[in-house]
Amino acid sequence: MDNRQIVLESLPQGKLSPDHFRLQTAPRPQPEDGQVLVRTRYISLDAANRAWMQGATYRSALQAGDVMAGGAVAEVVESRAEGLKPGDLVFADTGWQDYAAVKAAGLSKLPDLQPLTHLISVYGVAGLTAYFGLIECGRPQAGETVVVSAAAGSVGSIAGQIARLKGCRVVGIAGGAEKCDWLKSELGFDEAVDYKAGDVRRALRAACPQGIDVYFDNVGGEIFEAALFGMNNFGRIACCGAVSQYDGAAPSHGPRGVPGLIVTKRLGVRGFIVSDFYDRTDIALAELRGWVESGALKVQEDVIEGLENTPAALVGLLAGENRGKRMVKVV
Amino acid sequence: MDNRQIVLESLPQGKLSPDHFRLQTAPRPQPEDGQVLVRTRYISLDAANRAWMQGATYRSALQAGDVMAGGAVAEVVESRAEGLKPGDLVFADTGWQDYAAVKAAGLSKLPDLQPLTHLISVYGVAGLTAYFGLIECGRPQAGETVVVSAAAGSVGSIAGQIARLKGCRVVGIAGGAEKCDWLKSELGFDEAVDYKAGDVRRALRAACPQGIDVYFDNVGGEIFEAALFGMNNFGRIACCGAVSQYDGAAPSHGPRGVPGLIVTKRLGVRGFIVSDFYDRTDIALAELRGWVESGALKVQEDVIEGLENTPAALVGLLAGENRGKRMVKVV
Repeated sequence: MDNRQIVLESLPQGKLSPDHFRLQTAPRPQPEDGQVLVRTRYISLDAANRAWMQGATYRSALQAGDVMAGGAVAEVVESRAEGLKPGDLVFADTGWQDYAAVKAAGLSKLPDLQPLTHLISVYGVAGLTAYFGLIECGRPQAGETVVVSAAAGSVGSIAGQIARLKGCRVVGIAGGAEKCDWLKSELGFDEAVDYKAGDVRRALRAACPQGIDVYFDNVGGEIFEAALFGMNNFGRIACCGAVSQYDGAAPSHGPRGVPGLIVTKRLGVRGFIVSDFYDRTDIALAELRGWVESGALKVQEDVIEGLENTPAALVGLLAGENRGKRMVKVV
Repeated sequence: MDNRQIVLESLPQGKLSPDHFRLQTAPRPQPEDGQVLVRTRYISLDAANRAWMQGATYRSALQAGDVMAGGAVAEVVESRAEGLKPGDLVFADTGWQDYAAVKAAGLSKLPDLQPLTHLISVYGVAGLTAYFGLIECGRPQAGETVVVSAAAGSVGSIAGQIARLKGCRVVGIAGGAEKCDWLKSELGFDEAVDYKAGDVRRALRAACPQGIDVYFDNVGGEIFEAALFGMNNFGRIACCGAVSQYDGAAPSHGPRGVPGLIVTKRLGVRGFIVSDFYDRTDIALAELRGWVESGALKVQEDVIEGLENTPAALVGLLAGENRGKRMVKVV
């Protein structure tokens, strides 16, 4: 009973490539007391996967030779823990492999829901991150202008739509005219700024004639800086990630205007991780589900087939290939 | 009846010097309806005076040829407004001159209190800025570690002492061994870091073995960056000013770790200006007065004599000459 695993063979110094990984086969692990053996179904791909290679974040840094870490929707095949039985679905840090023995403590059984992929997109980390980041950190009020970067990505595409549902004017920042058109025509964004087309600060000013009240930041770097210069007094910046900074060496400097503009504009800048809000997950899921089922919120998914394609899928995600939530279907 | 005025003759491109100012004599202004004529008693010197020369902040930018702007405790000598009469003391933006005609709306009569200088230090903008920045933006809890930069300055010396009164471990950052010794021996700081003595990030780590929970930032730049790297998860940064960035051209980049560390550590970074909290001024003053009168909070003032010395006094403040609140006694 073999277990295919994708190992992070070496830590990237510059850009990540599929060559940093290799596929190996190992025996299927045995669960210990308190563990379950799970079979990986859908692996979530996230820009944060790359950040874990840079050093310790909210988890310890990845090392060369590790099975690549990553969260997945997985099915329990053998249980040595109370409360979980074969056939149950969980979201677990399985890593990039067919099977994993994981601690049952902290896992919760996922609802039986179709399509299963929604457990990883809108009802998973992406949807909850968008929801809590926008609502708790951004605190948007109807009529305000909300700007979202990486707006065509998994989190951004949902955050922007939630802002619209809350009555805000929503401006997305994305790479390329095609993504920008899609944000407006399909997802109902009021405006979109193509960051590959030139001066973002100026384009943002044109797209936000009333200034920016809430900026949902997924990217950091120059786009963070551009948004900072466009913020209104008492604006809020929700810091969700810094994808522009992950795929390479650690950045040599940060955005101009920090902390000067934070003072003069009296901004609130707040970083968050979805797990900070787990006690309110049920409230968030109920609201998300209402929107999805009524058709008010569109869920875009980008499903790649085959465990062996996971490295290339992550590299492509970092290059902005995807639209909506990218994941790998293992089985 | 002459009015001495200090004019900002030219806008500094690099460092400010007394040569950017000149003294002139003009006729004493006549108050219009709704105005009062005031005589300037004590001019408050603040790092922000320099920032006003860089561009629009929370006030419009200063222009060459303007009478230099600045707040002062002033005495009403002629009133054409209800509610204020000759002899009343007010805090007003008189600018650097003997007399000013100012709108009465928005002015409030200051309490009759000795020494008068306290109206500009602990009971003025400096004390209120320290109080609200620490309490409202820093939200320190007893037992937490609070770091204050420009700790020997007007705001920092008070903010640090308030943090200590709230039961925190307090670490000040200041320039030079003498100031650092004074923070510990006179003001009761637990530790002090001399930023002129080398690696601030390392020194801060040694001074804060439990990490930093609250950072009260007066300086921006490299010291902001050093503190950011030392912050604990869920820490708070109160952004009060960026004095390291004022006296020169606009900075070419910001601190590293923004926004990456804000995300992974889930920091709250908040800018503020004292006037945002004016509705709670009475509460703050009552608490400050209790501490001052009991001797729990020491007020350090640095009073320079003579309107003509105001330019040199500001230049010296930007160089870190002062200890505590610097002001100019005009009369």
